[in-house]
Amino acid sequence: MSSHFAYDALLAHTKDILAKGYGYSEEEARITAWVLTEADARGIPSHGVSRLAFYRKNLSQGHARPGAEPEVVWRTPCSLVVDGHDGVGCYIADWSVREMLELAKSSGAAYCAVRNSNHYGIAGLWAEEIARQDMIGMAFTNTYIAGIPTFGRRRILGTNPIAVGLPEASGRVFLLDMATTTVAHGKVELYDRRRKPMPLGWAIDENGRSVTDATAFEKVFYGSKFGGHLYLGGEGEEIGGHKGFGLGLLVELLCSGLSLGASSLNTYPEGGGGGIAHFFSAMRLDLFGDPAAQKAHIGSIIDEIRRSEKIAGHDRIFIPGEKEAESRARAMNEGVYLDEATCSYLAELAKEFGLAELKGLCGCAA
Amino acid sequence: MSSHFAYDALLAHTKDILAKGYGYSEEEARITAWVLTEADARGIPSHGVSRLAFYRKNLSQGHARPGAEPEVVWRTPCSLVVDGHDGVGCYIADWSVREMLELAKSSGAAYCAVRNSNHYGIAGLWAEEIARQDMIGMAFTNTYIAGIPTFGRRRILGTNPIAVGLPEASGRVFLLDMATTTVAHGKVELYDRRRKPMPLGWAIDENGRSVTDATAFEKVFYGSKFGGHLYLGGEGEEIGGHKGFGLGLLVELLCSGLSLGASSLNTYPEGGGGGIAHFFSAMRLDLFGDPAAQKAHIGSIIDEIRRSEKIAGHDRIFIPGEKEAESRARAMNEGVYLDEATCSYLAELAKEFGLAELKGLCGCAA
Repeated sequence: MSSHFAYDALLAHTKDILAKGYGYSEEEARITAWVLTEADARGIPSHGVSRLAFYRKNLSQGHARPGAEPEVVWRTPCSLVVDGHDGVGCYIADWSVREMLELAKSSGAAYCAVRNSNHYGIAGLWAEEIARQDMIGMAFTNTYIAGIPTFGRRRILGTNPIAVGLPEASGRVFLLDMATTTVAHGKVELYDRRRKPMPLGWAIDENGRSVTDATAFEKVFYGSKFGGHLYLGGEGEEIGGHKGFGLGLLVELLCSGLSLGASSLNTYPEGGGGGIAHFFSAMRLDLFGDPAAQKAHIGSIIDEIRRSEKIAGHDRIFIPGEKEAESRARAMNEGVYLDEATCSYLAELAKEFGLAELKGLCGCAA
Repeated sequence: MSSHFAYDALLAHTKDILAKGYGYSEEEARITAWVLTEADARGIPSHGVSRLAFYRKNLSQGHARPGAEPEVVWRTPCSLVVDGHDGVGCYIADWSVREMLELAKSSGAAYCAVRNSNHYGIAGLWAEEIARQDMIGMAFTNTYIAGIPTFGRRRILGTNPIAVGLPEASGRVFLLDMATTTVAHGKVELYDRRRKPMPLGWAIDENGRSVTDATAFEKVFYGSKFGGHLYLGGEGEEIGGHKGFGLGLLVELLCSGLSLGASSLNTYPEGGGGGIAHFFSAMRLDLFGDPAAQKAHIGSIIDEIRRSEKIAGHDRIFIPGEKEAESRARAMNEGVYLDEATCSYLAELAKEFGLAELKGLCGCAA
């Protein structure tokens, strides 16, 4: 049964699973639990505690090694290259972003390229962490292979998200966080479960033909090296698929290119680390004058758009990050929603690791 | 009649028109002619010498004032804010990029936000200029209003291009240069001239309905404040239109937000300057170690994609920037192609300003 859970309780429970069940260190567990709980609170369940299954698989297959400490292998006053040594992705990301922020505080701007990491959760969280410091924050990562280049047939790049956060005067953050593929794979899984046809422009099959049957596509995705996600703009060049592919490739080059890490195609090798690569940047607003003025101006441009006329049937223009921020505010009041499958999985893990059941806000157990 | 022209001859002729006819200074004319000729050579005629008409309109309406010198209004060791004082856009962009490159040479990375500028030609040219210095180059700009936010009805943002250049070991540059709208407006004009229906996902009419009739759309675009270009991903959210809109808005915030310049909605006010805002960044490759290693790795990732399997009917995966680089190489051998309308316009201008006719490579006049 699906249920709502108090944020703090879900956070503590997830941390327990990771520390007591998965063998994560206290810090690794704390940060990873926070990243996963935040995703659920923001209404991005594909990257929430349901990811515990993926993180466990990474442990059992040797891709992630808890306890491995990230190492700075190149340093300048405004840049770092970090080797994650196949450690825990969320921990490596948090560590790298904090190191980078120290540089940005003294240099004005800083960059960090990371190799040999693992899945770091929602990219937007890292961009937002940076933006909360009155900086423009950017976070990119490559991923397992999922996407097809324009006119290609083989999955060779990741869903390669772009995340950028800019602070507004109101304390809000403009937060763009988008897979460069039309949709993240979690969307396909949802359509599969609901037996709903996918729109054109999401995916092609192993022969390079458009596919709308999510169940058939899932078989291709896990059974063949061909077929996969299309990039934003869909098939071919007519409505801009080559632009989305270009963005996905750009993310790849910033992440694995600059860190000398594995490209998406070479991530998760048998018997090897995850090989995921990230790229972060932080740029202080006061590089351009008075941050209060920039933030007010950014806010006024956004307000102009909010107020602008809507099409029939719609009464709102959503600014990137708004839906997620509102979902988070609701979750803080009403609890974090988890669907039935995720509740069952949590209960299973609790039983296996001898942990107390997590109680939902309605009194039922996860 | 359409024709091919020697690159140097077209460059010199365009410079003459600007210097002798438009009243540009020698430097303004030299740089603007280079930018326009490069666009035609690269196969981007929408931003080529046909833009002389738009640049002239900007003069006659007082949006652009040749002779106005850009001024640095804020400076740190790694950043600049430039006020273009309504000068010539290409000249301001060139000046700003050169100033920024000086900072990047000493600081490792640098940024430049520009306000009160004008149209600066193809964004990719500036990103490429930076990339040629073994740096990652980025160039953004807002534009006249053209695009519609997801669920909006009013044109309120520009086509707001993103351009990023990364150097490869081969001497090639990965060069992504894309309007964040599905297509730039020049594509609509082409479909209008050819009486060809536009694909779904390019534009909506003043009532917010999809429009495929390019001629009807042109009337809306110039006759109503409603209706306009959709962003990459098209209408609604199903195939990611909100992501393209998010990218377009990001460009707006980086350009006008950080420079405190006009937003696209407020560009080209009656009796005022163009009010166009740009944002540039340069990041040295040696911030991440040995540039030769980065460039080789970037090249190998790209080669993996080039070699990867194609769909039926296609024998090539194009990497961003390749088509344009090859078009340029052809133009250097065979001449720069101009269509009939552009040839006629050049001939008209030459006559008006008392300049010698530009001779095409076939001996015919422009």
